[in-house]
Amino acid sequence: MKIALAQLNYTVGHFDYNTSLIIEHINKALLQQVDLVVFSEMSVCGYMPHDLLEQHDFIVRCDTALKQIAESCIGITAIVGAPVVNKAQKGKKLYNAACVLSEGKLDKTIHKTLLPTYDIFDEYRYFESNDEYNIVELKGERIALTICEDLWDKQPSAYIGAKGALYKKSPMEELAKQNPSLIINIAASPYSYNQGNIRQTVLKQNAKKYKIPLVYVNQVGGNTELVFDGDSMVLDAQGEIINQLLRFESDFKIIDTDNLVKPINDVTNKGSNYIKEIHDALVLGIKDYFGKMNFKTATLGLSGGIDSAVTLALVERALGAENIKVLLLPSKYSSDHSVADATALADKLGVEYHNLPIQPIVDEFENTMKSVFVGTKPDVTEENIQARVRGTMLMALSNKFGNILLNTSNKSEAAVGYSTMYGDMNGGLSVLGDVYKTDVFKLARFINKNTEVIPENTIIKPPSAELRPDQKDSDSLPEYALLDAILFQYIEQKLSASEIIAQGFSADVVKKVLHLVNINEYKRFQTPPILRISSKAFGFGRKMPLVAKF
Amino acid sequence: MKIALAQLNYTVGHFDYNTSLIIEHINKALLQQVDLVVFSEMSVCGYMPHDLLEQHDFIVRCDTALKQIAESCIGITAIVGAPVVNKAQKGKKLYNAACVLSEGKLDKTIHKTLLPTYDIFDEYRYFESNDEYNIVELKGERIALTICEDLWDKQPSAYIGAKGALYKKSPMEELAKQNPSLIINIAASPYSYNQGNIRQTVLKQNAKKYKIPLVYVNQVGGNTELVFDGDSMVLDAQGEIINQLLRFESDFKIIDTDNLVKPINDVTNKGSNYIKEIHDALVLGIKDYFGKMNFKTATLGLSGGIDSAVTLALVERALGAENIKVLLLPSKYSSDHSVADATALADKLGVEYHNLPIQPIVDEFENTMKSVFVGTKPDVTEENIQARVRGTMLMALSNKFGNILLNTSNKSEAAVGYSTMYGDMNGGLSVLGDVYKTDVFKLARFINKNTEVIPENTIIKPPSAELRPDQKDSDSLPEYALLDAILFQYIEQKLSASEIIAQGFSADVVKKVLHLVNINEYKRFQTPPILRISSKAFGFGRKMPLVAKF
Repeated sequence: MKIALAQLNYTVGHFDYNTSLIIEHINKALLQQVDLVVFSEMSVCGYMPHDLLEQHDFIVRCDTALKQIAESCIGITAIVGAPVVNKAQKGKKLYNAACVLSEGKLDKTIHKTLLPTYDIFDEYRYFESNDEYNIVELKGERIALTICEDLWDKQPSAYIGAKGALYKKSPMEELAKQNPSLIINIAASPYSYNQGNIRQTVLKQNAKKYKIPLVYVNQVGGNTELVFDGDSMVLDAQGEIINQLLRFESDFKIIDTDNLVKPINDVTNKGSNYIKEIHDALVLGIKDYFGKMNFKTATLGLSGGIDSAVTLALVERALGAENIKVLLLPSKYSSDHSVADATALADKLGVEYHNLPIQPIVDEFENTMKSVFVGTKPDVTEENIQARVRGTMLMALSNKFGNILLNTSNKSEAAVGYSTMYGDMNGGLSVLGDVYKTDVFKLARFINKNTEVIPENTIIKPPSAELRPDQKDSDSLPEYALLDAILFQYIEQKLSASEIIAQGFSADVVKKVLHLVNINEYKRFQTPPILRISSKAFGFGRKMPLVAKF
Repeated sequence: MKIALAQLNYTVGHFDYNTSLIIEHINKALLQQVDLVVFSEMSVCGYMPHDLLEQHDFIVRCDTALKQIAESCIGITAIVGAPVVNKAQKGKKLYNAACVLSEGKLDKTIHKTLLPTYDIFDEYRYFESNDEYNIVELKGERIALTICEDLWDKQPSAYIGAKGALYKKSPMEELAKQNPSLIINIAASPYSYNQGNIRQTVLKQNAKKYKIPLVYVNQVGGNTELVFDGDSMVLDAQGEIINQLLRFESDFKIIDTDNLVKPINDVTNKGSNYIKEIHDALVLGIKDYFGKMNFKTATLGLSGGIDSAVTLALVERALGAENIKVLLLPSKYSSDHSVADATALADKLGVEYHNLPIQPIVDEFENTMKSVFVGTKPDVTEENIQARVRGTMLMALSNKFGNILLNTSNKSEAAVGYSTMYGDMNGGLSVLGDVYKTDVFKLARFINKNTEVIPENTIIKPPSAELRPDQKDSDSLPEYALLDAILFQYIEQKLSASEIIAQGFSADVVKKVLHLVNINEYKRFQTPPILRISSKAFGFGRKMPLVAKF
């Protein structure tokens, strides 16, 4: 049987667009005598529509789109993903379904059993879990059709210290009783820098355990904070990957189940390093945020420091220099080299910039507030005024010309609250908010690998917020290598203070860092959406109580 | 059997405090020869700890606290709520449990079956569902011990247009087979202005259906955006409420199951109107946000308009006038009466205020930006600069003196995006963000019911943002009565445009309003936590995709 894997980029709720895109690829498959074309999970409506799923008219639009797509399935079968209504009297009113379309109609519907409800996933909020298992027969193949998490029955619990698996059910064990000859899995599995390996391991385990080939189709593209990396693939009955689609790009490939051999000189599955992956994920994330929101142009504040430099380089790759206007906003504490470094980068990339010193406005704020501040000493208040003047100027540019402000904070800063609300925390999208400072340096080196884009001086000088004379980040924070190591153990690994200290870190430093993370939940509550590239990003995937003592 | 209902106010993760509070009330019950004292759901750790539940040390602290509390249960039995570890090899690693403590130890554990995962609830993210049902025997009573949602097996689906119940299981139907003589339900059920009636209906239906008395213990107090109203109660076997604890306050009452009669002259269950409830909920929400975060003092911007006036009156009731400093921040577009009305209110309440005209700072911004804005016309940019100058000044006061900035926006504005990010959207907590403008007027009248606190002129003048000459809200928006009616149908009732139009609203107005709601998701993404008083507030309970086309 000839199967086409359609790895495409959908927009949530954009039924006209998603439907045309799917039909276009059905027609493309038809031209090449394909028997079955497979699209990804929830492809009809885009993943994830969240509470739009509670709106009746949204589900009606899904049904209509399904019918339209089915009409184009003459002489070919398609599998698409969509929410469908649960007609039973009890239970959640929707299923997350894989719909088999052929002969112009909806032929069969398979429901998802394992509903991920952890980190950024909240599928049990909307969907009932399946408990009926049926093979799909097509052209002599007996297909075990599953949806994403259905193959992840060995998923560990998010609760640290847990033993055993998160789920009680195993859809593949049930389906295996009916002698399938092929596993098809349609997915919406977002990128994080460790997800690629885990995903391959899970898929290999399934193919090997059940001794049948596996076709895996994931979606691609950015959706607010999530970036889907594609990485669709085909494995043989021994669990070897014999075909793999592109990462971070739409792709379309045809395979033949009668001839599952690895192509000679196949360049798939090349060992890529995680910095390149993060780079590609962020560029795609920016591009799709703008494209899907119908935005074209961006702005940001260029300080001469590494965060704004790396952000600008990524934005330039996503949107093009002609669509960016940046502001240099030096204060009296900004060093000459900061302005020089910022100017050099803007010139190098060919980006329009304006240099607007902020001191007159800052002075006017201090002048106006002085009757209230009488008898007080300068403190963080005056530092924050500078950051907020910059934030207001960038938003003014954004309002006047429609350029979307991009936030340039990194994950280390966001974690410890080393940032000013309504100042440098402003923006429609945070590009580096899930990238630790030490990785921001690596990204800068990666961006410069062929030619110097980011000035060397920006990379080698000691990080500074330049909000008071001779300020260095290291005055307030541990060195970033140490800070990031502790943050990783606490945020990604969810270890306690004592467990981190037991690894050999200084108790004082660990306690200080964890305290900073905890008392700054209120700041992160109001941050822009953050492009997610790790297994635990700030945002929807990390729901910490704001009022709490722990 | 003598049962004490302990309706208390817990802090999430504050184990020392919660444990002492519980033990104090066990001792109080002991002194009065009580047989059983009942505390609310998750009382040991506070509801809801969210992702703290994934941290191993958090669960260890729960266990330790449980043991400590058990040690004080000599000669008395206590029921407390806590997360406990699921020791099975498969499934989520925690249960949401009711723990029966007696003779100094943990005697029995009952697990929650129905795990709400909709609106502000996300229990399936953490907990496995129970499927073993056992009666708890105590002093001749056979107790059907249930946890909150366990009695809500007839809960409808959040999906509009759904028929039938959300859940497949019914814990009470299972327990009824074992001939219970009493239902006890421990809860963590937050307030919304329609929740009181629904809750009474559900409890009455259960008592009547199973023909046994019901003891219901809920928690009280504010927790970030949620306000728990208490409203614990006792129903007899006919479903009549015979005892009811206070709303919006801690309370403790003792009943005797051998003598379940309604006290003469009982003042409970008095018909309260929803405006008074909202008033009490907001005052409690402010008070507990400050108290549990260890904050004492507040600030806000007083414009002379109704939103900031009502907010100030509520804050004064929650924190006291001596803990508030406000700023009057007039621009050249502010009318004389605005300053006069604001001054009158601050004087009336005895609140410190400073009048700081913003024009010099605004002029300096415009002067600095003019090289970039050359050739452009004044537009919303200049209006937003005014709002952001105010936001920056209020945050400067907050930074300098530690007063927490309260946001004064209402739900109507938040819905249609009639507000400035990083300007009037600033704040640590939004007081009125779940109150429609038409209800803000009613709140003002309620606050003034005995004596004029809010100047009459503030209530009767046409609402205006005063960001350009002679501006009125009605220039950009429909009249609030109309706007709020449409918003209610869309947000709370989740109706589609065509369904709202079918009710007789103008199609143009409905489409315009719904469009405004949808395109402003990005603004609400960055709002402060909003005190929740309706069944569908902006915030955690409403998860809309930001990048979407629908």
